[in-house]
Amino acid sequence: MTGTLYGLGIGPGDPELITLKALRLLRAAPVLAWPAPETGDSLARGIVAPHLPGGQTEIAIRMPLTVERFPAQNVYDRAAAELGGHLAAGRDVAVLCEGDPFFYGSFMYLFGRLAERFPVEVVPGVSSLTACAAALGHPLAARNDVLTVIPAPLDDDAIAARLAQTDAAAILKLGRHGPRIVTLLQKLGLSDRAQYVERATMATQRILPLAAVDPAAIPYFAMILVHRRGEAHAMEFES
Amino acid sequence: MTGTLYGLGIGPGDPELITLKALRLLRAAPVLAWPAPETGDSLARGIVAPHLPGGQTEIAIRMPLTVERFPAQNVYDRAAAELGGHLAAGRDVAVLCEGDPFFYGSFMYLFGRLAERFPVEVVPGVSSLTACAAALGHPLAARNDVLTVIPAPLDDDAIAARLAQTDAAAILKLGRHGPRIVTLLQKLGLSDRAQYVERATMATQRILPLAAVDPAAIPYFAMILVHRRGEAHAMEFES
Repeated sequence: MTGTLYGLGIGPGDPELITLKALRLLRAAPVLAWPAPETGDSLARGIVAPHLPGGQTEIAIRMPLTVERFPAQNVYDRAAAELGGHLAAGRDVAVLCEGDPFFYGSFMYLFGRLAERFPVEVVPGVSSLTACAAALGHPLAARNDVLTVIPAPLDDDAIAARLAQTDAAAILKLGRHGPRIVTLLQKLGLSDRAQYVERATMATQRILPLAAVDPAAIPYFAMILVHRRGEAHAMEFES
Repeated sequence: MTGTLYGLGIGPGDPELITLKALRLLRAAPVLAWPAPETGDSLARGIVAPHLPGGQTEIAIRMPLTVERFPAQNVYDRAAAELGGHLAAGRDVAVLCEGDPFFYGSFMYLFGRLAERFPVEVVPGVSSLTACAAALGHPLAARNDVLTVIPAPLDDDAIAARLAQTDAAAILKLGRHGPRIVTLLQKLGLSDRAQYVERATMATQRILPLAAVDPAAIPYFAMILVHRRGEAHAMEFES
């Protein structure tokens, strides 16, 4: 009897935005694993901290800071070997995933390495996408809107082409790409239709008009939502 | 002192996929409102049924079956007037929203009518988008993938244009548009890269290869996920 690998969506940051299912599995698992920077605290571990009963084996999957674009595969090789050892010994392993495990999450690197050998269950979570819309108090998509999620590392032409073909867009993974994206939205005349939020639902959440954002200080956990139809879009729900 | 209007994301169907926050507000609200068909049971009411303490005022917002494309605005006018009466009298009102309130939800019609007069809080929920990916056991989007959400009522040319410009797509609101979408995906050579799921996370969940789907029997609560890079996409997480 092997253990089950759980990919637990723990939500966007507010510890109260975890689901009952993720909470139950989180508390029951003998082994927890969570992503963390090379040194210092794990965001995911911090989100669930109020919920942990104590006494669980915990495994930090630490990612070198130098790897920005794609994760160091050897980090996941080692983590998969360690988690695989617990699973082979019959112990369930719960991997904490900020937001949702299958929405731009690092869980898929473990999933890709372990899913053929062990049973896996993915528990969906509240993603940053809808958390940002809720924080902004602005509908994300309605009726027959096309909604496009665009990673900021793509080049300007690719982003502009997607923005031209959508009603609403979410631009994520901003971080060091933030200054270029802010400039691009200005160039495309979309600044007035863009809303900025960082660390949605966390205690440190900030919402700013795009013009008030310091582009050089945009963190990775920030998102820009663009509504191509602007204010007319919000108004149409009223009648 | 007026009451607060809560838009509560209650998740995609499994009652255990509600968040702690939505559950707390759901139980505390003196007045609940939920969408329902013209006759018969409400899906949203059914999702939260196991969690209700009893003794709350409940308001069904019943939508005539004849209105398929856009909701009858007079239904929302009347509902907003009724909810507004409770809010003006100082009673909090919690509106149950399947999935997430701002992700293609009918909540925005009430939001549009009441947000200027009363305080509103939107609690994000697990959307059908990530619930379907979890049910299928297939990552939705990773790394620098573009993800596009496409409502099935759009015409074939509009859908084909969006599919041509994305790495992953979710086609929703299928229902009576299902047969046309299945034919379109065949024509575009994307059938082998499409996965079908209906009523994700509900007791009646079904997952089928697209070729095995009866197009005439596709319900509204179904989704097709398309990964343009096919199996190569899943494999790349392994190394």
